[in-house]
Amino acid sequence: MSPKNTHSEEFIDGFAASKAKAPLKPLRYKRRVLGDHDVHIEITHCGICHSDLHLIDNDWRISEFPLVPGHEIVGSIVEAGPSVRHLAKGDRVGVGWQRESCLTCEQCLKGNENLCPDNEATCVRHHGGFASAITIDSRFAFKLPASLSSESAAPLMCGGITVFAPLRHFEVQPPHRVGVIGIGGLGHLALQFAHAMGCEVTAFSSTAGKEKEARRLGAHHFVGNFSKRELARHAGTLDFIISTVFADLDWTQFVDVLRPDGKLCFVGIPSENINIPVISLLAGRKSICASPIGGRADMEEMLAFAARHKIKAMTECVPMEKANDALAKLRKGQARYRMVLTR
Amino acid sequence: MSPKNTHSEEFIDGFAASKAKAPLKPLRYKRRVLGDHDVHIEITHCGICHSDLHLIDNDWRISEFPLVPGHEIVGSIVEAGPSVRHLAKGDRVGVGWQRESCLTCEQCLKGNENLCPDNEATCVRHHGGFASAITIDSRFAFKLPASLSSESAAPLMCGGITVFAPLRHFEVQPPHRVGVIGIGGLGHLALQFAHAMGCEVTAFSSTAGKEKEARRLGAHHFVGNFSKRELARHAGTLDFIISTVFADLDWTQFVDVLRPDGKLCFVGIPSENINIPVISLLAGRKSICASPIGGRADMEEMLAFAARHKIKAMTECVPMEKANDALAKLRKGQARYRMVLTR
Repeated sequence: MSPKNTHSEEFIDGFAASKAKAPLKPLRYKRRVLGDHDVHIEITHCGICHSDLHLIDNDWRISEFPLVPGHEIVGSIVEAGPSVRHLAKGDRVGVGWQRESCLTCEQCLKGNENLCPDNEATCVRHHGGFASAITIDSRFAFKLPASLSSESAAPLMCGGITVFAPLRHFEVQPPHRVGVIGIGGLGHLALQFAHAMGCEVTAFSSTAGKEKEARRLGAHHFVGNFSKRELARHAGTLDFIISTVFADLDWTQFVDVLRPDGKLCFVGIPSENINIPVISLLAGRKSICASPIGGRADMEEMLAFAARHKIKAMTECVPMEKANDALAKLRKGQARYRMVLTR
Repeated sequence: MSPKNTHSEEFIDGFAASKAKAPLKPLRYKRRVLGDHDVHIEITHCGICHSDLHLIDNDWRISEFPLVPGHEIVGSIVEAGPSVRHLAKGDRVGVGWQRESCLTCEQCLKGNENLCPDNEATCVRHHGGFASAITIDSRFAFKLPASLSSESAAPLMCGGITVFAPLRHFEVQPPHRVGVIGIGGLGHLALQFAHAMGCEVTAFSSTAGKEKEARRLGAHHFVGNFSKRELARHAGTLDFIISTVFADLDWTQFVDVLRPDGKLCFVGIPSENINIPVISLLAGRKSICASPIGGRADMEEMLAFAARHKIKAMTECVPMEKANDALAKLRKGQARYRMVLTR
């Protein structure tokens, strides 16, 4: 245990916002008593997700302060409760957005723990991963394949599963033509997953300068602006579009970019409602859908798939002490593509 | 051949609108030369669909006048072209909304002829079923199971397939809880299909007086008004909702009525855009979709299924000469539930 962690058996050293929009400051808090199914994880890496900004800012009115953000956690198990069977002390694990579900409802029984009405988020009403350690239900900790580096695995725990799960759930198939709107933290992973699934991949970005990188990440085609004319050129070409952006785009035009039976899937949440004529869906039997993270089986599948296909987040590592600098960079849209805090 | 049809070998006697919104008047026109794959059908019954009103009124700007409406056709084959193998003279057949597709594109090859970009509608740019006869590509004529009466089979050719195909395509399963919005020409068939598929069925109607009939048609539950309070009572209860109405309802509330992974499917086209916050779809991984008629395999499946389960349109028959009266009744929303013209 490093000198920094001398209190880790009883205390955790985290970085917390004391109120909405406040800069993070060190906070020492007591760790919870290790439950039968819990593991205590010494954190080495924590990715920063856009949702962390939303939580700090209390945009969703669900934040409780002081708030320790962070839900793309990688670390090592230093203690395991007596009922933990699938993990052991010394295992390197990842933890994502979800820390708990009831494990008894229909959705949990179906492997859709992410849809459980009693799901609990890692850093909502609980302290998250911008910290030295976390004690958490082992059933929401996932052993990381050895070939994934901790730094590039951390962003898979939320960003990765968020784009992987809908590709699986909405049955994207290898011959499909897949579009990814927004080449950022989520989008740059979506390009890699869709490419590795054997799909023909089109990247949509409002930043024309991202073309080279998008192609390197797996895009076969690049659309560098969202103008009516440009989108019209691509009408009827894609089977599945995953939108990772928060911007309010002309969604009807993107529906028109879909082929028959195509689906437009939101994993980013635009601030405005989507507003679409039913007829634009009807003629081609199209769908609009959205997807939140994934279940536990999805997570295992995603990690194995990422390892096998060498899918990696592009990261910029920053010491956890400089979390505020990293958050500022993310706010400015300058992360390329995922900031990861390290200890 | 009845005396009325003395000219049937060369001429067809139809009822046509001479211009948008005009009442129908008799029109005699030359039948087309029988092609290799064509059949010539002497029409006995033709259902009246809401789309016929839209075509007469030129609401969709696709009508050509004079226009002979009608695309829920039942009749007997009196002549078959030399390449027709699956049908023969004397067969009783049905014809629906679609009269043609390219039969070579990807969608046609997949059995999605309804999504073929070159699909042709029975009574758009062609004279339809409010007539003594029709000459049409046999590949879009379907032999009717003997146990289906002509009068109750006619509305299956458009109304029936329109609600059956999405239940199949969007993979509605027997344990699912299915809602049907609008208990009219389409809805009263949807209730029967969903019930026969083993689903738990909820009817939504703005006409509280339809409860008894809705239950008789297969609804296990009836919701007699669309108030916020009433819909909120049903939040999170249904897996699939099929909307058959043209009215502009609060679709976000209906999305809230869906369970996780639920789908809201439009087969009626509201005049206003749908306007929905993405977050209402995201938490439960829900979808909004729409569906146009069905493919040829769907049609065969639907007819066999309807025959096996004794699914029948509730009809009111009117002699074809009184088509204008029947149209007027439909316009007033007084059809219970499908007007069928007979000869």
